[in-house]
Amino acid sequence: MPTHFADRLSDAVRARATPAVVALDPVVEHLPAELRGDHPVDGPAAVSALGEFCTTAIDLIAPVVPAVKLNIACFERHGPAGLAVYLAAAAHAARRGLLVIGDVKRGDVGHTAELYARAHLPAVDAITVSGYLGADGVEPFLELAAPEGRGVFVLVRTSNPSAGSIQDLVLQDGRKLHEALAARVADWAARPGRLGATGWSCVGAVVATRDAADAARLRAAMPRSIFLVPGYGAQGGMAEDFRPCFRPDGGGALIAAGRSVIFAHESDDIRRQAGPRWEDCLVHACRAFAADVARLLPGGGV
Amino acid sequence: MPTHFADRLSDAVRARATPAVVALDPVVEHLPAELRGDHPVDGPAAVSALGEFCTTAIDLIAPVVPAVKLNIACFERHGPAGLAVYLAAAAHAARRGLLVIGDVKRGDVGHTAELYARAHLPAVDAITVSGYLGADGVEPFLELAAPEGRGVFVLVRTSNPSAGSIQDLVLQDGRKLHEALAARVADWAARPGRLGATGWSCVGAVVATRDAADAARLRAAMPRSIFLVPGYGAQGGMAEDFRPCFRPDGGGALIAAGRSVIFAHESDDIRRQAGPRWEDCLVHACRAFAADVARLLPGGGV
Repeated sequence: MPTHFADRLSDAVRARATPAVVALDPVVEHLPAELRGDHPVDGPAAVSALGEFCTTAIDLIAPVVPAVKLNIACFERHGPAGLAVYLAAAAHAARRGLLVIGDVKRGDVGHTAELYARAHLPAVDAITVSGYLGADGVEPFLELAAPEGRGVFVLVRTSNPSAGSIQDLVLQDGRKLHEALAARVADWAARPGRLGATGWSCVGAVVATRDAADAARLRAAMPRSIFLVPGYGAQGGMAEDFRPCFRPDGGGALIAAGRSVIFAHESDDIRRQAGPRWEDCLVHACRAFAADVARLLPGGGV
Repeated sequence: MPTHFADRLSDAVRARATPAVVALDPVVEHLPAELRGDHPVDGPAAVSALGEFCTTAIDLIAPVVPAVKLNIACFERHGPAGLAVYLAAAAHAARRGLLVIGDVKRGDVGHTAELYARAHLPAVDAITVSGYLGADGVEPFLELAAPEGRGVFVLVRTSNPSAGSIQDLVLQDGRKLHEALAARVADWAARPGRLGATGWSCVGAVVATRDAADAARLRAAMPRSIFLVPGYGAQGGMAEDFRPCFRPDGGGALIAAGRSVIFAHESDDIRRQAGPRWEDCLVHACRAFAADVARLLPGGGV
């Protein structure tokens, strides 16, 4: 029987001593000039550049962080060839010892959800899914994931400015909508066969927290679920804001940073510190990010 | 400037005198035996069989219905080669004069939504998107769709049994969650540049109605939005239940049927009437479906 997803993730976080996840969401327009060249952004040369960037970036981050998140939209934009690059990047990351989260945000019902699950789960260690279709939009993913040692992160609250306009709607019982969904996630997470040796479930949650109090409230609502937390770096979050996402033993959350790491070569500040090579900028930013959020683990950092 | 999506759709419905949409959601396991063969369901032969089935099915339904809906999950399951079949099927359907709805149910935020929009909108006439991320999960799709004469159907209520467990949650103000989302859709639909000459918007809604009263309530809530209504045939709905989705002039709704048409060869009843060839079964079922829902148009049917 494959090792439980949460156990593998806990081991990986311990091995790298940081809960940092790099969101490898490359956009052709932001690739380093020497990779991008002068090719049209939608042509085959752009797709190769995307693949080359991913391979090198994965090689550079693999010694530093436990996991990588790939947003499939960045690849899907380029059609079948882009999807092939996504799959190749996922396989390469796995070979380099990274856990791979496919940020696919898929959601459909019944049999179609099962088709999405079969499409996406074999390629990666975990995927993100939409929860607003209810249990039968999520269960087909969980049924395939759990016995295979894979994980699912249900979108509970997103980081976009207008997310609250729907996700924070107040229900008759006083809860916000995303809290009602969090309660479902807590239920799905605790079902038989879903918990690993660490006590964490293979059913996690994507949770964009607003501040520390918000993080503590959501942690209490989903005690078994590992949080995948966007919002570090380019999105403005500071490490301390994320502390309540973790249990005191350091388990329970992954903090994701994307643009601030993978497009570090676009920052004058980082180029001044790391030099003109994009690879050096990326490593510099990745190490700084990993060290910053490492402070959130017990005994971590300074 | 391209013709508005709703105007093109209205013309197409009028030309075929039916609001029927075939959901071409093929699953290898259900393909006719002579196409499927004995190949493994995930191998390249299965993917070619899928493509061959789609091409023939499109040729058969094109004279009968105005539009086809392709659920991308059925293709994505087969990886990059499957995605290529999806794109080829969409292009073939367009060449045969069908409007094509890509049932992709994508949803992401901000820039990533824009990448999904750029990935999917050029290939089809309209797509389905998730609405639960709020305006900035939907607007990037609308910004690309409207000026290009394309449409977006926002998922407001789905047809799965557990959909209500989230989508029917009651808010503090007494509305159900999907009614709050419907109000947003109504707002997005009525914005400048979104309405066509017919008065219908390029912002439609996927609406699984429970019964006629439910359909009337949702029609009133989204007066400018064309409904894409699942649930006919295999999902148990009868044409009369869908009548209130339409305005008295016959505009405003598309009724979708999938398995009951495309897998008609699996029905003993239809084989008895149409004979043993799957193509004849499909045409028979498609014509019966198109004629049944044609009764919902003014002066339609018997």
